[in-house]
Amino acid sequence: MNAGIEADIPDIADIHLAHARIRSAVRLTPVLNDPLLDQELDCKLYCKCENLQRSGAFKFRGASNAIACLREEGLTGDVATHSSGNHGAALALAARIDGRTAHVVMPENSSPMKIEAVRNYGGQVHFCAPTNDARVQELEKLVEGGLIPVHPYDDPRIIAGQGTAALELEQEVPTLELVITPLGGGGLVSGTAIATRSWGVDVYAVEPDGAADTIDSLRQGRIVEHFAPDTIADGLRALVGIRNFKVIRESVRQVLSVSDNDIRRAMLLFWQKLKILIEPSSATVIAAIQNHPEIFSGKKVGVIISGGNIHPSDWAELTRGI
Amino acid sequence: MNAGIEADIPDIADIHLAHARIRSAVRLTPVLNDPLLDQELDCKLYCKCENLQRSGAFKFRGASNAIACLREEGLTGDVATHSSGNHGAALALAARIDGRTAHVVMPENSSPMKIEAVRNYGGQVHFCAPTNDARVQELEKLVEGGLIPVHPYDDPRIIAGQGTAALELEQEVPTLELVITPLGGGGLVSGTAIATRSWGVDVYAVEPDGAADTIDSLRQGRIVEHFAPDTIADGLRALVGIRNFKVIRESVRQVLSVSDNDIRRAMLLFWQKLKILIEPSSATVIAAIQNHPEIFSGKKVGVIISGGNIHPSDWAELTRGI
Repeated sequence: MNAGIEADIPDIADIHLAHARIRSAVRLTPVLNDPLLDQELDCKLYCKCENLQRSGAFKFRGASNAIACLREEGLTGDVATHSSGNHGAALALAARIDGRTAHVVMPENSSPMKIEAVRNYGGQVHFCAPTNDARVQELEKLVEGGLIPVHPYDDPRIIAGQGTAALELEQEVPTLELVITPLGGGGLVSGTAIATRSWGVDVYAVEPDGAADTIDSLRQGRIVEHFAPDTIADGLRALVGIRNFKVIRESVRQVLSVSDNDIRRAMLLFWQKLKILIEPSSATVIAAIQNHPEIFSGKKVGVIISGGNIHPSDWAELTRGI
Repeated sequence: MNAGIEADIPDIADIHLAHARIRSAVRLTPVLNDPLLDQELDCKLYCKCENLQRSGAFKFRGASNAIACLREEGLTGDVATHSSGNHGAALALAARIDGRTAHVVMPENSSPMKIEAVRNYGGQVHFCAPTNDARVQELEKLVEGGLIPVHPYDDPRIIAGQGTAALELEQEVPTLELVITPLGGGGLVSGTAIATRSWGVDVYAVEPDGAADTIDSLRQGRIVEHFAPDTIADGLRALVGIRNFKVIRESVRQVLSVSDNDIRRAMLLFWQKLKILIEPSSATVIAAIQNHPEIFSGKKVGVIISGGNIHPSDWAELTRGI
């Protein structure tokens, strides 16, 4: 970890600035609770519904902040990123609103729905082989060609943007005791941990068992090198970022993990109680609360429901027979 | 129409009273809008998301108000109704919260999901033959046995309760020009029309082509007698109620109708833009806006998204190939 990275991790002021920049573009998402869900989980749950955010995920916050920062710096021109999912769509939308085009490197085996989402928002898709190296190389080519890179999570503008969801949650429910978010690359949880520093809540994060690279990395004291994710939570397959890992080490109370079957059951439970479809990544937090009464029981818990980008027939398939 | 019914149609004060009674039990549902949906529909749309209401539909408002009125009157005891859908589940939940049991007469061919919903909320299901007469007779038997009847829509307490959604919508977006709701038995639209009387908006309602009994009734000047509904919008198959019809005649600008295919397309569009699953009944309003640019184009339109009680696999089935 070098001094440059150390220096550019955002602080709470950056998150407030991000909020001021993006608040007219993002949707002030509702915080929902449900007494019957509370009964089932034995705690009081406040769900910040980023599945109802524009582009269907919290990712629109970070993407909007990154684009707004470029505008402030007078940097015109198109942007580029790699993403197999929500960040690509979110950046495409944020870029289009600002009159730019986002170029999104996507593995050639990405889901048709996610490819369509990027294109629907005016993004341009560049396919690559389904490996991390291929993604990075393809993105480098685009950047060499003059496009401005916007990393999906290991970027201070992105972290600050994602932190704005927790800021809004604090404003709406200031009496929370715990906050919990899913953890993929770590953009959401690091932004949340920074945003909540002066609030006095404990922040937890959740990974799927099949992509628990952060738990492994915390154990080893450094980010693991070999990592082959295997989980239905397609939004959480990324390797934790350098800045994100640093914030998690310093400010996240504990990273939990849940099985794919726990995730399936939690997707079903959430729909039964709230009539809301959530993608597997979002269901991890509900599953973790169910699995850890020793942490959550009797508490006032804020959860960030990260996204709802799953086709209803895929949802039905995943929850069948559960 | 007799003087008794004339006298017990609620007015705006009744709706404010209902709101005061139920506001701690019901969820203050979010009002969502989306620039891309607006672009598609060529108007500014504000969606009052009653699909996110407790029990998954606006019906919980009316049911909660009816139960609260019983409590105020000192009437203890269990309640009974007939419903093939959302009202039964809503009444079951409202009754349970108040320590009562709701007995719900349901046609024996009701969807398993809707039967399960009533039971999950502690309601007791009484099956009957799938005809209107059988429903009414079975309910009469229950009432003779001492249960307190709560009609699904032709009841001043229900109408007042349903009107509270429009009240909240007005408080959140006071500058609307039009409001539009689905129309089945007429509980929602009559409550909405009364709630908005002093607001200066035009109220529209929508029926499916296959259950356009209100349009026929308006044409004939009295409620039609023969009516065999045939539509995928299962929440809108009821015959318009007497009180409801009177309010609609006096205060609803126009009742529109849409085809089942229009409904299917609107369900898909709403999901694509807002990532929210809505049941066919709710999609009627989006379809009507698409079909009638001469009414809605360029306007600020409030829509009440009535419910989200559809299983994702049924949703996928209905929208397949659209």
